[in-house]
Amino acid sequence: MSDQRHKRLIALTRLITARPGDQLNLTDLSRRLNVAKSTLSEDLFLVKEALEDARLGEINSHVGAAGGVTFWPSIDAERLREGLQVFTAELTNADRLTPDGFLYVTDLLFSPDKIDGLGMLLGQRFRHLHVDYVATVETRGIPLALATSRALRVDVVLLRRDHRLSEGSSLSINYLSGSSRHVQSMSLARRALVRGGRVLFVDDFMQAGGTARAAQDLLGDFGAQVVGVGVLVATREPRHKLVEDYSAILEWNRADDGVGSVAPSDWVKRLVHWEELS
Amino acid sequence: MSDQRHKRLIALTRLITARPGDQLNLTDLSRRLNVAKSTLSEDLFLVKEALEDARLGEINSHVGAAGGVTFWPSIDAERLREGLQVFTAELTNADRLTPDGFLYVTDLLFSPDKIDGLGMLLGQRFRHLHVDYVATVETRGIPLALATSRALRVDVVLLRRDHRLSEGSSLSINYLSGSSRHVQSMSLARRALVRGGRVLFVDDFMQAGGTARAAQDLLGDFGAQVVGVGVLVATREPRHKLVEDYSAILEWNRADDGVGSVAPSDWVKRLVHWEELS
Repeated sequence: MSDQRHKRLIALTRLITARPGDQLNLTDLSRRLNVAKSTLSEDLFLVKEALEDARLGEINSHVGAAGGVTFWPSIDAERLREGLQVFTAELTNADRLTPDGFLYVTDLLFSPDKIDGLGMLLGQRFRHLHVDYVATVETRGIPLALATSRALRVDVVLLRRDHRLSEGSSLSINYLSGSSRHVQSMSLARRALVRGGRVLFVDDFMQAGGTARAAQDLLGDFGAQVVGVGVLVATREPRHKLVEDYSAILEWNRADDGVGSVAPSDWVKRLVHWEELS
Repeated sequence: MSDQRHKRLIALTRLITARPGDQLNLTDLSRRLNVAKSTLSEDLFLVKEALEDARLGEINSHVGAAGGVTFWPSIDAERLREGLQVFTAELTNADRLTPDGFLYVTDLLFSPDKIDGLGMLLGQRFRHLHVDYVATVETRGIPLALATSRALRVDVVLLRRDHRLSEGSSLSINYLSGSSRHVQSMSLARRALVRGGRVLFVDDFMQAGGTARAAQDLLGDFGAQVVGVGVLVATREPRHKLVEDYSAILEWNRADDGVGSVAPSDWVKRLVHWEELS
């Protein structure tokens, strides 16, 4: 029955794409769909070809006893362009300026609909680094860090602003933050399992880079290595940041009188085909 | 060509299921797949039938000018059972006890792989309330709140522990927290857009319910109404909590000497078919 094969392909497509980055076992899939492995192999080949032809993602096969398949979704460039347009417009919305000259953006940062795609962008940017963790410091960078960690299939290591009794003994570090204009601290529980790990640091905002630098130092004391830094927004000034290398999704060219302008960074423009914007 | 239809169905399945809860426009889909709307309708019918037969989710159709389809995924009971087993085992792992009697769980809470499914559980539990926002208080409940808000297709309102200069003027409330054993405060920016909204409060942990009660009061001052409370873990004692109604995923029966026992609540056991555990 052709209809039966249609239905099986539909169910298989959903099962494979529902858990991006997870390796799915062929034995489980054939049991779940109630088909022989040889039939499953033919179906998988078709699903792979169809998804790749439509540029919806890639399917990687793993051979051997623990054989299986993994789906990696493509970036949805059109949707990301729309999301970035919203962000650039909102970040230059003068209504968002507080009397003290800060930009109120917490509502934007805590919207999965707006942030999840940006996490996929950072995931794409840093996939080649094969990190073991994404680290962030509380609080506003947490949603972007989680979205990035989901795309990279790793967990988030949370750096706390204060030492919390509930986390047992911790290491702390004090540093000068450019954006809050005073001395800040961050701490990490000794129980946090980052020893020897490769870490991507993610935050919402970077000005001088003091926070990213402090995170690098603190994680270094745990024997972990920060191999990449990704932020949502970086200010153009100061040009020289306290970390050597970083990737910002958006660049903010601050004006003396008002908000100034915000635009995606060049690597983002390339990834989302920004020039196709009408 | 049968192969062509196969491939189209595979691409359509991915496009529809990639954005759970989003309404997808039929015109966009037919353009994207390069087929007539009549063909698309036939394909959609088959995809709907196949996904529903395999209990992978539901597709709702919307008629009219803004016509389209929305996919709502089913809960993956088997995977959730595995996840809940990990949590119950970890929460009673004596190695996680700090010298002060707290349980170190930050690493578990900040793992999308472990938390996302639990957010889908809370989403399923509270979908009928049709909330406008999920609210949480920083910091450890944030990943579960985000996962729940994603399942419900709404944003998160973040209650801060301190008033932050970067958020402009705020309202604050002080309350007695049972778990940290001292006076805590929480505050919300006046700019947060919750006025008149229906809110689900989500947190990682509930003992006496002081935090949930304070959130209820603070959000009430904004003209918002907390219509539901969901937490990852609630202690069995005290039986009487400071909020009238709440749903906990896990119940913790604390022992005087050590960690005690943790088990899923009855509503969770039903949803994930807990008794099917071998």
